[in-house]
Amino acid sequence: MMDEILDRVQKGTLSVAEAKEKLATYENLGFAKVDHHRKKRQGFPEVVYGEGKTKEQILSIIEAIRSNGNDVLVTRISKEKAEHALTEFPEFLYNETAQILSWKDESKVDDSFQGYIAIVCAGTSDLRVAEEAAITAEALGCNVRRFYDVGVAGIHRLLDNIEEIRQATVSVVVAGMEGALPSVVGGLVSHPIIAVPTSIGYGANFNGLSALLTMLNSCASGISVVNIDNGFGGAYNAALINNIAKGARKQ
Amino acid sequence: MMDEILDRVQKGTLSVAEAKEKLATYENLGFAKVDHHRKKRQGFPEVVYGEGKTKEQILSIIEAIRSNGNDVLVTRISKEKAEHALTEFPEFLYNETAQILSWKDESKVDDSFQGYIAIVCAGTSDLRVAEEAAITAEALGCNVRRFYDVGVAGIHRLLDNIEEIRQATVSVVVAGMEGALPSVVGGLVSHPIIAVPTSIGYGANFNGLSALLTMLNSCASGISVVNIDNGFGGAYNAALINNIAKGARKQ
Amino acid sequence: MMDEILDRVQKGTLSVAEAKEKLATYENLGFAKVDHHRKKRQGFPEVVYGEGKTKEQILSIIEAIRSNGNDVLVTRISKEKAEHALTEFPEFLYNETAQILSWKDESKVDDSFQGYIAIVCAGTSDLRVAEEAAITAEALGCNVRRFYDVGVAGIHRLLDNIEEIRQATVSVVVAGMEGALPSVVGGLVSHPIIAVPTSIGYGANFNGLSALLTMLNSCASGISVVNIDNGFGGAYNAALINNIAKGARKQ
Amino acid sequence: MMDEILDRVQKGTLSVAEAKEKLATYENLGFAKVDHHRKKRQGFPEVVYGEGKTKEQILSIIEAIRSNGNDVLVTRISKEKAEHALTEFPEFLYNETAQILSWKDESKVDDSFQGYIAIVCAGTSDLRVAEEAAITAEALGCNVRRFYDVGVAGIHRLLDNIEEIRQATVSVVVAGMEGALPSVVGGLVSHPIIAVPTSIGYGANFNGLSALLTMLNSCASGISVVNIDNGFGGAYNAALINNIAKGARKQ
Amino acid sequence: MMDEILDRVQKGTLSVAEAKEKLATYENLGFAKVDHHRKKRQGFPEVVYGEGKTKEQILSIIEAIRSNGNDVLVTRISKEKAEHALTEFPEFLYNETAQILSWKDESKVDDSFQGYIAIVCAGTSDLRVAEEAAITAEALGCNVRRFYDVGVAGIHRLLDNIEEIRQATVSVVVAGMEGALPSVVGGLVSHPIIAVPTSIGYGANFNGLSALLTMLNSCASGISVVNIDNGFGGAYNAALINNIAKGARKQ
Amino acid sequence: MMDEILDRVQKGTLSVAEAKEKLATYENLGFAKVDHHRKKRQGFPEVVYGEGKTKEQILSIIEAIRSNGNDVLVTRISKEKAEHALTEFPEFLYNETAQILSWKDESKVDDSFQGYIAIVCAGTSDLRVAEEAAITAEALGCNVRRFYDVGVAGIHRLLDNIEEIRQATVSVVVAGMEGALPSVVGGLVSHPIIAVPTSIGYGANFNGLSALLTMLNSCASGISVVNIDNGFGGAYNAALINNIAKGARKQ
Amino acid sequence: MMDEILDRVQKGTLSVAEAKEKLATYENLGFAKVDHHRKKRQGFPEVVYGEGKTKEQILSIIEAIRSNGNDVLVTRISKEKAEHALTEFPEFLYNETAQILSWKDESKVDDSFQGYIAIVCAGTSDLRVAEEAAITAEALGCNVRRFYDVGVAGIHRLLDNIEEIRQATVSVVVAGMEGALPSVVGGLVSHPIIAVPTSIGYGANFNGLSALLTMLNSCASGISVVNIDNGFGGAYNAALINNIAKGARKQ
Amino acid sequence: MMDEILDRVQKGTLSVAEAKEKLATYENLGFAKVDHHRKKRQGFPEVVYGEGKTKEQILSIIEAIRSNGNDVLVTRISKEKAEHALTEFPEFLYNETAQILSWKDESKVDDSFQGYIAIVCAGTSDLRVAEEAAITAEALGCNVRRFYDVGVAGIHRLLDNIEEIRQATVSVVVAGMEGALPSVVGGLVSHPIIAVPTSIGYGANFNGLSALLTMLNSCASGISVVNIDNGFGGAYNAALINNIAKGARKQ
Repeated sequence: MMDEILDRVQKGTLSVAEAKEKLATYENLGFAKVDHHRKKRQGFPEVVYGEGKTKEQILSIIEAIRSNGNDVLVTRISKEKAEHALTEFPEFLYNETAQILSWKDESKVDDSFQGYIAIVCAGTSDLRVAEEAAITAEALGCNVRRFYDVGVAGIHRLLDNIEEIRQATVSVVVAGMEGALPSVVGGLVSHPIIAVPTSIGYGANFNGLSALLTMLNSCASGISVVNIDNGFGGAYNAALINNIAKGARKQ
Repeated sequence: MMDEILDRVQKGTLSVAEAKEKLATYENLGFAKVDHHRKKRQGFPEVVYGEGKTKEQILSIIEAIRSNGNDVLVTRISKEKAEHALTEFPEFLYNETAQILSWKDESKVDDSFQGYIAIVCAGTSDLRVAEEAAITAEALGCNVRRFYDVGVAGIHRLLDNIEEIRQATVSVVVAGMEGALPSVVGGLVSHPIIAVPTSIGYGANFNGLSALLTMLNSCASGISVVNIDNGFGGAYNAALINNIAKGARKQ
Repeated sequence: MMDEILDRVQKGTLSVAEAKEKLATYENLGFAKVDHHRKKRQGFPEVVYGEGKTKEQILSIIEAIRSNGNDVLVTRISKEKAEHALTEFPEFLYNETAQILSWKDESKVDDSFQGYIAIVCAGTSDLRVAEEAAITAEALGCNVRRFYDVGVAGIHRLLDNIEEIRQATVSVVVAGMEGALPSVVGGLVSHPIIAVPTSIGYGANFNGLSALLTMLNSCASGISVVNIDNGFGGAYNAALINNIAKGARKQ
Repeated sequence: MMDEILDRVQKGTLSVAEAKEKLATYENLGFAKVDHHRKKRQGFPEVVYGEGKTKEQILSIIEAIRSNGNDVLVTRISKEKAEHALTEFPEFLYNETAQILSWKDESKVDDSFQGYIAIVCAGTSDLRVAEEAAITAEALGCNVRRFYDVGVAGIHRLLDNIEEIRQATVSVVVAGMEGALPSVVGGLVSHPIIAVPTSIGYGANFNGLSALLTMLNSCASGISVVNIDNGFGGAYNAALINNIAKGARKQ
Repeated sequence: MMDEILDRVQKGTLSVAEAKEKLATYENLGFAKVDHHRKKRQGFPEVVYGEGKTKEQILSIIEAIRSNGNDVLVTRISKEKAEHALTEFPEFLYNETAQILSWKDESKVDDSFQGYIAIVCAGTSDLRVAEEAAITAEALGCNVRRFYDVGVAGIHRLLDNIEEIRQATVSVVVAGMEGALPSVVGGLVSHPIIAVPTSIGYGANFNGLSALLTMLNSCASGISVVNIDNGFGGAYNAALINNIAKGARKQ
Repeated sequence: MMDEILDRVQKGTLSVAEAKEKLATYENLGFAKVDHHRKKRQGFPEVVYGEGKTKEQILSIIEAIRSNGNDVLVTRISKEKAEHALTEFPEFLYNETAQILSWKDESKVDDSFQGYIAIVCAGTSDLRVAEEAAITAEALGCNVRRFYDVGVAGIHRLLDNIEEIRQATVSVVVAGMEGALPSVVGGLVSHPIIAVPTSIGYGANFNGLSALLTMLNSCASGISVVNIDNGFGGAYNAALINNIAKGARKQ
Repeated sequence: MMDEILDRVQKGTLSVAEAKEKLATYENLGFAKVDHHRKKRQGFPEVVYGEGKTKEQILSIIEAIRSNGNDVLVTRISKEKAEHALTEFPEFLYNETAQILSWKDESKVDDSFQGYIAIVCAGTSDLRVAEEAAITAEALGCNVRRFYDVGVAGIHRLLDNIEEIRQATVSVVVAGMEGALPSVVGGLVSHPIIAVPTSIGYGANFNGLSALLTMLNSCASGISVVNIDNGFGGAYNAALINNIAKGARKQ
Repeated sequence: MMDEILDRVQKGTLSVAEAKEKLATYENLGFAKVDHHRKKRQGFPEVVYGEGKTKEQILSIIEAIRSNGNDVLVTRISKEKAEHALTEFPEFLYNETAQILSWKDESKVDDSFQGYIAIVCAGTSDLRVAEEAAITAEALGCNVRRFYDVGVAGIHRLLDNIEEIRQATVSVVVAGMEGALPSVVGGLVSHPIIAVPTSIGYGANFNGLSALLTMLNSCASGISVVNIDNGFGGAYNAALINNIAKGARKQ
């Protein structure tokens, strides 16, 4: 890219100002620099991490995104902050379990791709993280199928659903406590697994450390791991892989 | 017990010296006090932890035990130290994988009990610990069946053997790396499970911490845990339970 | 089991639907899959972990269990959630210290077995965990005897009760702070000990890590450990062993 | 799958023995159960983890794999053990840096796919892990391009190569010490990144913990993480994604 | 100094009382001993750490400082405590983001020095710490330029500002989550960098441990680190270096 | 002791009931067993740890102690709980900073001993712990001198007081943050030092771990350490040593 | 002291050079500064920490000490290094278990004091540390009685010796693994206990962390702790207390 | 810089190739990319980290550096590897304690600057790290003064040297064990302190973690910290500050 930009600048087909703009792909809101760059290439909406931002800041960022005509995805946003945004953008959807606010230009959605992401979840307490993953994946344009409460302590519940999980393009496997589910799923499917440890548990789970270590040390191949409770990250990785399956990624 | 001893002392049916002896149930070798007390009640051999003792010390302790006519079990004993003892006690058995030296008065063995302990082991690298458990359990008078290399990454290997594991009185489940095996077995059987984490693995397994935490946080009920690599401890607990099944424990 | 099921399907004595049902032993409530499988074999009530579930969810699960005619045990349930369930099931018992809601078909209780579980507890602050263990064990059909406030700093308090503890089938030993009690009890009895570390303490106890490590490293044999504050787990393991003593477990 | 098998057993188109075999997809060598199942579906060679196995055990496993006509990949195998195998299989390749022994039926290799995996590596000390990833990916049938010594302390070295990295289907990014490289690469590309922390460093890197935490906490999306020094795991995940890109995965 | 004091005492040019006072450079408020010593030499205001002190204590300390005619800097002071002080000292400035209350005798400010400190900050959530650093540095008499929201996930945002950062005398680089920013900046500038990890993040960031380890293990030279969230400490170190640049430090 | 008791029982000079009572030195309140044993020998009051006990439980224990005519010391007791006790025992003293409620029979106090304990404290934030130590020591009958806010960052403040500290029988040195004060004091005095780390600090102090490790690793001899924030424990150890100095300990 | 020195300087009764010397109480060997100050006040020999010093350095330091006519105590010195010193000082004593080399001017020993230090030790593996404590205490002029292999798993072994332990002035209690011994001893005696955790154990003992935490969290009062394996430190603290009992410490 | 380069390319005063070269400031040796960029600006020699590189690799890198006419500094290089390089470059200097090989064009050395760096070191065991710092600082063109064995346990040794330390431009303070020295020095001087924790110690020092935490939590201002044992890093930071003092850095 640098070569090309320098070339075009020398040939005069690109002004210095334009050259600079090609590298400066974000909008400066003062308190934040909104990045319009990466998302465009992938057909992904802009993603805003809501935690630690005021409802006013979130609204400003949303307005900046919408004025660019882009889709919107706000994660870790409380009901109260979401309602502040919904007043101005009533067409947005808010999922309280997942704590996600989102909007998508449905007219541009291409639903010809049949592949899907399996969101596999060990226990009912892990639901918040699993739904963060599921809603995120949907917002990123993926088909999603949910397989909840299929933890390893009752292995038959998992085996009953394993064929449908096997057909997925990629799985996001969410588990707290001992976090053994990805290892078992990993031994039964042949697609990539994104493992998401959760902080669910008590005592020696040390706020998710136990599940995290379990997943990193899995004796099953084909498992990679994201941060504790990072349902969004799990889904984002899965969506990138889903995109590859779509064949949509053409440089 | 205290009541009874005091009573008998007062009544004169027990001398002060005898009363003291009832509490002093060990033999003082100078560098160690050999305890003859607890073992007798359970029909268990005396157990010697070999690590950190010289071959001379081990031999002295063995001689003290044998002169009491008791069975012998030495764990964590290297081949070299074992050979030193075998010169004097050639009838002893040494298992190099398990690093155990043992001797049992076969004439006193009662093999009428059909129940058995299942030693279930995740990977070939965990073999040393699994064998320490298996040989220990046998030395403590238990029937043992081995189920090795049935880790969760290939769940069918476990399912193929699950019926025979289910029939056991108690299982000792040995696993390193992510240590998920006890959780899966725990969901499939209805007897107690003693989980033994091993230090096998690398990186974020932190020398067995990963497997240990997994087992402590297991979402399956009926699992209790011993120290990392403590195959002996796993078997000892199982043997106590096996004794209960035998109905042999009568105070 | 698999052999038998396949055999019977081939012979036509078992329909495919029935075969599937044999493996599908849970009821799907949407947000949770209630497992009716394991409990039946052991005569144990269904166990519900109340923490992180809404009072409505808990009530739904209880109704599902009761409609199967099964006994009920809900742990870690707050007073407020319990009262919600008690409105519909006024015959249930709620123990506030133990945070347990339970119900048992008394007509089916077989109290011919004389053996008991000793619940041994170091300090008054560990009471909640000890009572969780005691009430759980009783709900699982065991006789229980309590030995509270017998911590190692006043060893005479323990020695005074040791004979009665010795007569138990199995002990659940609960301790926080330095967690030394199981080691001392372990040296004085000859039955299995389930050690339960608690998070009671401050500073370098690191929320129970200190007691947990103490118990895992115990120099006394015959001790296995469950998660920090896991009184339920301690009692469940003990109840499995108690069942073996009852001779009730017949495959 | 279970439905189908049961159905076919009932219809008599599948014998009980065949039904069992469908679930028993491994070969029992006594000390190990070789799994032929998963690999077949993906066109991947059998993978053997060499560490902790004797040269005799490794050779036995290789013979079992070769007698099935499968490709072979042995990781973490020392030069001495490799030479033992090379005596019998002189056509095998041994890469000493990567510590990998492998063999592939070149006649079956389909090299029509142009996509490649980028192996990006921070420092020269991380070479062993990076090469483990590179050789593994090649053994799994992927095209690989190496970008070494492009750590963040000299960001220009990375920027110079970024266009070629961007064109990859997926990147495996290997880094020790502070492990910041995946975050920076993640901000510059739009394909999935598998991050591999290494144990390279000293002091407060705590044997790779520092790099591991950095990667798990990355503020860049699209990054998932494997165990410390797990070059094989990084490549395996990348190869699964590569397979999706090939469109080769058809259930 | 000791030599000189002893010399002067012997020569009689310094009384014992005066000699003692030279070592006793603080004022005893009963609950605190205010140190007037070190600050004087550097032209720095007195610094008060507000956390854990009552508003009355803070006010007393401020009065002691002001009665010495010194400048004032109170860090980690809540709005409520600050308002208590502002009632008496309405001329003081309170910055709520930075949680700093300060006052400076503007008549003594020497603004002839053109050098400046760059405060570089990764994300908007790190703002509190960055502002603590910026306001502190200004209170200590330094010129400050802010470069916010230039985290490594969007490296172009940093590169766009790098020339101005390079011109600084010293940089304070603030980052949470993976904390990679100092490493990247360190590779692009040739002045000292004081790295400040923040506790921003979740899960495996362990309250800032992740960022702290990243910075300590940085492969870039010229980086030293202060405590998590210690914006004040970062700025204080930078101000000492700034003083050296001013050539103002003459013993 | 056992010898003697058995002897006297045999000789009939001690009844079985009396013999038992000699070992049963506590009073059973149901929820707690109050120990009257140890304290008597040392002339120390009974000590009650108030945290985690209800105000009713505390009052019951106090009544039991007072009915034995013993002195009372309740630590970690909130103002509200203390006021509940003060209603019944208005003559008791409550120190809110130290969170201690106590009562002493002044008529029995022997103040002929001139030795004192030095309570040395690094910062004003450590005051609560220092006062817990000081009030405890006084309640245990010791003379106390306080040396507060003499942390190592202003070493002259310490040196100014060092002569008076040197004259103490024993020092209790309280410090948070980096906890370096005991090392420095240890190099300047020749009596035993009990070091008390506090949880004061933030970030990488990890709730007192930093100060604790510093004190355990002190390169100065003559320092031993108690738990984080355990001002009571520091004072108790010091009081035992003080008793030795008094020459009051006569078995 | 400062007052007095300044006073005497002013009065001319002390020269500046002498004043300086009073503060400079060490001898500069180039690679080390030998401190003659503190020891003199306590009648203790000079202590040299042998680990990490060459045999030549150790010899030089010994010569410096001996030329001052002082007693010598070298800890953590290997047999080989000790033999190097013994060639020149054949009258020195070397204890190989304790790894201590020492020499004492027997003519100055005052053995009129009858009090003794109890060295209590849990297991035979802790012997090295216990002997380091015992030999150190003797070198520091104390009477020592050893109580070895009295760990809590066989509580009767401890109870048998408890009366003699109770008579000691102070106890040094050494224990590895779970480290529970000091808690139990602490509940049975009324003098100060210095607890010494050892690194003996494996797995979850984490090189002594387990025993260390146990001792810090002890529910028994009167226990303070030194570093892992620090037998010397335990004895040094005990000797300071012993000195107080001797009444020998007169400022 | 980017502006200027783009400008010049457009104006034709800079060719595309030249523009690229301006960003590509390193030399590609295959296994390593030698960076000539940063060093030039500061007059520093090229720095090579010797650990984990073969003697052949080190020699190649040295040759590349020398052929550019630059000064050389190789850290963490063993005697054997150094001797390999010395054969070809006999004029190089090797310091075995510091494990540093270096060469400097003495003709270019400007020794007109009188300021110096103080290297302050707590104990003789920390010598290797202190010397790594000292030799590095000298190789980077700084004047150095050494203050060794002045640990806090003998505070007079430090006070004796404090005046000369105070005169330094910047201090590098090296300490292991409890690492308290920087706090004390920090309270006595008014220039920046770079604190270097070492791994010297045992037990609860956890390989330097103790000293690291102490320094990060220092209550003295003006202290920043580098990695454990990172004497080089400490000196490098100090040299950057020294450069500022020289006034040599002119943008």
